[in-house]
Amino acid sequence: MKEGANEHHGHGGLDSIRERLRVFAAERQWEQFHTPKNLASALVVEAAELLEPFQWLNHGTKTELGADMYMAVKHEMADVLSYLVMLADKLEIDLVSATHEKITLNALKYPVDKVKGDARKYSDY
Amino acid sequence: MKEGANEHHGHGGLDSIRERLRVFAAERQWEQFHTPKNLASALVVEAAELLEPFQWLNHGTKTELGADMYMAVKHEMADVLSYLVMLADKLEIDLVSATHEKITLNALKYPVDKVKGDARKYSDY
Amino acid sequence: MKEGANEHHGHGGLDSIRERLRVFAAERQWEQFHTPKNLASALVVEAAELLEPFQWLNHGTKTELGADMYMAVKHEMADVLSYLVMLADKLEIDLVSATHEKITLNALKYPVDKVKGDARKYSDY
Amino acid sequence: MKEGANEHHGHGGLDSIRERLRVFAAERQWEQFHTPKNLASALVVEAAELLEPFQWLNHGTKTELGADMYMAVKHEMADVLSYLVMLADKLEIDLVSATHEKITLNALKYPVDKVKGDARKYSDY
Repeated sequence: MKEGANEHHGHGGLDSIRERLRVFAAERQWEQFHTPKNLASALVVEAAELLEPFQWLNHGTKTELGADMYMAVKHEMADVLSYLVMLADKLEIDLVSATHEKITLNALKYPVDKVKGDARKYSDY
Repeated sequence: MKEGANEHHGHGGLDSIRERLRVFAAERQWEQFHTPKNLASALVVEAAELLEPFQWLNHGTKTELGADMYMAVKHEMADVLSYLVMLADKLEIDLVSATHEKITLNALKYPVDKVKGDARKYSDY
Repeated sequence: MKEGANEHHGHGGLDSIRERLRVFAAERQWEQFHTPKNLASALVVEAAELLEPFQWLNHGTKTELGADMYMAVKHEMADVLSYLVMLADKLEIDLVSATHEKITLNALKYPVDKVKGDARKYSDY
Repeated sequence: MKEGANEHHGHGGLDSIRERLRVFAAERQWEQFHTPKNLASALVVEAAELLEPFQWLNHGTKTELGADMYMAVKHEMADVLSYLVMLADKLEIDLVSATHEKITLNALKYPVDKVKGDARKYSDY
């Protein structure tokens, strides 16, 4: 790519991440560890690290987090996305399509008139 | 890309997801539940649901998963991405930029000549 | 305590659980799946299922949970403890001793006069 | 109790942990952070830290872990048990009874003749 700072935000945001992660793992000979099962494990580990800064806070707004935790959160979110992209790559899943498909299914599962303002129905309890 | 069914894969794949999720939550009056802390909790719950089909398998390849588990995995990945996009939206984080930034940091943290083929150094143990 | 229905609460509460879980797995020929890695995966899956009922609540008190979620929480806690006991069994760890050891270490790590009333120091941020 | 080193292993192993954790939190004025929801969040964070050392390993046996990771695993298991005991304390749940109850339910849910040697039925897929 040659377009400089904007390259990451252009066409194929997730594609450019996938490409860099493929090179990253290949250079380190880490593909051997990247079974789908292991990537799913690593993903939940990162998701929990993302939750950690929030665990004793009230709501976890940007202000409540403060600069250090905000940065930590940003980087943990990046780790989650990285493992998600790597797992999708291994399993040949188009993340963006799958997500649009799931949102459509959720719209059927949670009809507006039945769940409006109600967290309990939201959670199947 | 120009139009129709392919629109989700073009420029702004995550942007189109973010827009749909905003509408989805607004219609159901669920924004009140979507504090960053709650979204981070929901994200780890979905990440664990993503891990569940893999838990007793050897490697979790597409073949080993089978069609039903593969579909379940795909939808759980969609849920993880949805919460990640919602959390990024609340915290005003550009996910793709943050991930490129983190990959660059990881390249410095794990120099090829020190970690090549070595999972142990990879994990800080 | 002497006998019958109360036996589970007497000497060796965790021992009696471990014994039942050994029999349970052996009868079903599930030991083959119970590698430490798989048990640790199953444990985090159950821990996330335990978090799920709380995810949209304010504090998750008994009253706020309500009867159905309270029962679900109770059973998920049981699942977490079961996997913890099974993992400890495989790795030959005495859970109660290990926990007393860790509490002693934590008392040194978090001196009362440095962390009193402060969640932030508690979390290493 | 007066018997010294054995006190932790005698009657009420979890009771002695609960008592120490109550004092630990009270001394640090941390009870204010220990809502059931927050404790459930902290528990899943620790469960994921417990999974982390296993994530790139094959089976995670004691030998494969090595001494450092084994110690880390032991301490993370202690953290999981601590939060489980604290959550049970807040919600007035008898962990050992609840676990025996759940094992009895699982025996009905997974009849030996239907799931023998079969991980797939085990996982509801």
